[in-house]
Amino acid sequence: MTQIDSARAGVVTDQMKVVALSEHLSPEHVRQQVACGRIAIPANVNHASLSPVGVGEGLRTKVNVNLGVSADRADFPEERRKVRIALEYGAESIMDLSNCGKTHAFRSWLIERSPAMVGTVPLYDAIGYLEKGLADITADDFLRVVEAHARDGVDFMTIHAGLTRRAVASFMATGRSLNIVSRGGSLVFAWMQETGNENPFYERYDDLLDILHEHDVTISLGDALRPGCVDDATDAAQISELIELGILTKRAWDRGVQVMVEGPGHVPLNQIEANVRLQKRLCHGAPFYVLGPLVTDIAPGYDHITAAIGGAVAAASGADFLCYVTPAEHLRLPDVDDVREGVIATKIAAHAADLAKGVPHAADADARMAAARRVLDWDAMFEVAIDPVKPRAYFESSPPAIEGTCTMCGDMCAVRTVNQALEKLDACSPD
Amino acid sequence: MTQIDSARAGVVTDQMKVVALSEHLSPEHVRQQVACGRIAIPANVNHASLSPVGVGEGLRTKVNVNLGVSADRADFPEERRKVRIALEYGAESIMDLSNCGKTHAFRSWLIERSPAMVGTVPLYDAIGYLEKGLADITADDFLRVVEAHARDGVDFMTIHAGLTRRAVASFMATGRSLNIVSRGGSLVFAWMQETGNENPFYERYDDLLDILHEHDVTISLGDALRPGCVDDATDAAQISELIELGILTKRAWDRGVQVMVEGPGHVPLNQIEANVRLQKRLCHGAPFYVLGPLVTDIAPGYDHITAAIGGAVAAASGADFLCYVTPAEHLRLPDVDDVREGVIATKIAAHAADLAKGVPHAADADARMAAARRVLDWDAMFEVAIDPVKPRAYFESSPPAIEGTCTMCGDMCAVRTVNQALEKLDACSPD
Repeated sequence: MTQIDSARAGVVTDQMKVVALSEHLSPEHVRQQVACGRIAIPANVNHASLSPVGVGEGLRTKVNVNLGVSADRADFPEERRKVRIALEYGAESIMDLSNCGKTHAFRSWLIERSPAMVGTVPLYDAIGYLEKGLADITADDFLRVVEAHARDGVDFMTIHAGLTRRAVASFMATGRSLNIVSRGGSLVFAWMQETGNENPFYERYDDLLDILHEHDVTISLGDALRPGCVDDATDAAQISELIELGILTKRAWDRGVQVMVEGPGHVPLNQIEANVRLQKRLCHGAPFYVLGPLVTDIAPGYDHITAAIGGAVAAASGADFLCYVTPAEHLRLPDVDDVREGVIATKIAAHAADLAKGVPHAADADARMAAARRVLDWDAMFEVAIDPVKPRAYFESSPPAIEGTCTMCGDMCAVRTVNQALEKLDACSPD
Repeated sequence: MTQIDSARAGVVTDQMKVVALSEHLSPEHVRQQVACGRIAIPANVNHASLSPVGVGEGLRTKVNVNLGVSADRADFPEERRKVRIALEYGAESIMDLSNCGKTHAFRSWLIERSPAMVGTVPLYDAIGYLEKGLADITADDFLRVVEAHARDGVDFMTIHAGLTRRAVASFMATGRSLNIVSRGGSLVFAWMQETGNENPFYERYDDLLDILHEHDVTISLGDALRPGCVDDATDAAQISELIELGILTKRAWDRGVQVMVEGPGHVPLNQIEANVRLQKRLCHGAPFYVLGPLVTDIAPGYDHITAAIGGAVAAASGADFLCYVTPAEHLRLPDVDDVREGVIATKIAAHAADLAKGVPHAADADARMAAARRVLDWDAMFEVAIDPVKPRAYFESSPPAIEGTCTMCGDMCAVRTVNQALEKLDACSPD
């Protein structure tokens, strides 16, 4: 029984209890939301080390970290360092996008010790692992790789099943500035063009769902036609595929498979809320997992910031799960420092959204920070900070002359000035 | 005649023509907006090196860089390096917040060579320069410093005139998590408590306006009661002062002085749009100049990112002018690297907002980036980037095996894959 099967049968699973506790909700509420698909709990039956989390409506916004080797940089020890950083800064999810070399060994290592949920894109691995020309890979080959990942204990998989012939026809008719920028999407498109066949993940969707169902793998419906520049945002190609994803969402639920739906991409600020509402409507309230959105195209080197802007607004508008973006986006495979910058920026966006959404207890940390600042208790400030390391290093690099202040304001510190003025007032008051 | 005097007299000034040209608007439109106060063109008659810009409705969002020495770090050569970085990355405004040592010499140096508009907070300088105890400074002293700055050629000055006794009473009755965090605001508050007098900038507001009018200094009405934590956002204290600022806005316009109004502060995402609408209503459409807003309190070390999120949303909602925030905020006086990070993050926020607001030609740069990415022209990408240096360094640090790609995707580069597939299609087509 998958989580959604259990929920529909009226059973509150251990995973639902853990989610309820950590989200300050009742287990019964979580069960109801899992039953109707508004919350997914990606939890492969074979992922023993998992601390389950929920993704969806009314829950804290979750953060995913992408990592994994590419043909150009296949340094597994480096990838293991990235895993440690991701976990240290509180990522709830790690996607292993490795696509060459000993991917199975790294995936097993990761699943064995990751309390964070683990996601993959089996298509990448299929192409790297099978060592065939793209057009020679069969639909059966693709499904075999999905099955291998499911057996390994992967909690959710990105599957680009929505790039159907219908969606491709919309794409070809639309006329875009930047065509297809989804790696998986581009490969499915090329495969369809070369073989003349329908999208294999769509053609064999029921077989695929049966594999996922067996291990309770959540399907993360990939958006092959996500916009790669703000000019392509929310265009007919993107929305045509989103319509397909909504149809596929229902089919997955009908077969007892949990669903998340992936979203854009590059989207200007004024279109983000509409994108979230459209996804929630067309995909029947399924959890929305967004990459970015990047609110401008012109900031390579700083796309963790453009994504933090877009991600915060998307999550505040109802997106449930943010894929991190690092400063290396569009430029190179991220290194460990890029991963740290990316996960912190994305945690900031997620938290800002949770404050806006009024997620229970989200404001507790901010209240602790304000209390620490009111009394200029620097250690308490660093302790509650999203990253305790960098602010302490900054503060200590520049010692103030007056204890309790910092070198930004020194003897003009507003908090100190007002505390002193209020103390004098108190001293003068009649009681 | 100030810009607003001229505009009301039907005169299109040279400054209005420059603004109209750079904003793709008609000079007559700019004149009308200056006349009714919706656009300010801070341009002191003594600032000969200025390239005038407009701040206000329908214009590109402008960015300010704060710098200047404090008692703890009085390194003027370092401040001059910050000026160069601010100008290099396109800041339209520099505020010199120096408050000790030879402030006049630095201010003169800055005004002599800055094409960006220059702002100050005369109160800081008064306290550093006069070398009196706070309570011994007289209202006349304050006005004399304002006059000195005006003569030097400062284009706009932050004046905390809205912290009236009425506003203080609201503040004392409100009960706040973090009291007053505005440096100038805290000093005015302490002065009022110590002397028992009304706010000197309010008491002598007409005299102050006469000084500003003489040199066409734009008044930037400071928000002494801006929230210092998300829990204090949009509270009675803040809004009581905003009501005062609206009243003061009209009085300044009536005396022929241009106005900007300063705004919060720490504000959760879901309250930002309301803050902007409220300011625009209560202050009669005056340009809105925001610091941040910071959308969470718990990210010291990364407040350039929390501010970029809030600033982008504020500007997309109608704020006109963003004060940058650096990673050093709340921790230390920023160094040159912090300044660079801060100005770039804020330029990203401003640009993202301009795309959302539909500012004329804002999307041109993004279109050039998309065109460069479509053909994998890396040099063209770096050229159009907000920061051309960092993305090139990133890209070159990690050379891809396949020309044209980067190490993020290598041989799985989506753009390359789709370009090849579409070329094959073209080759097969009957013509």
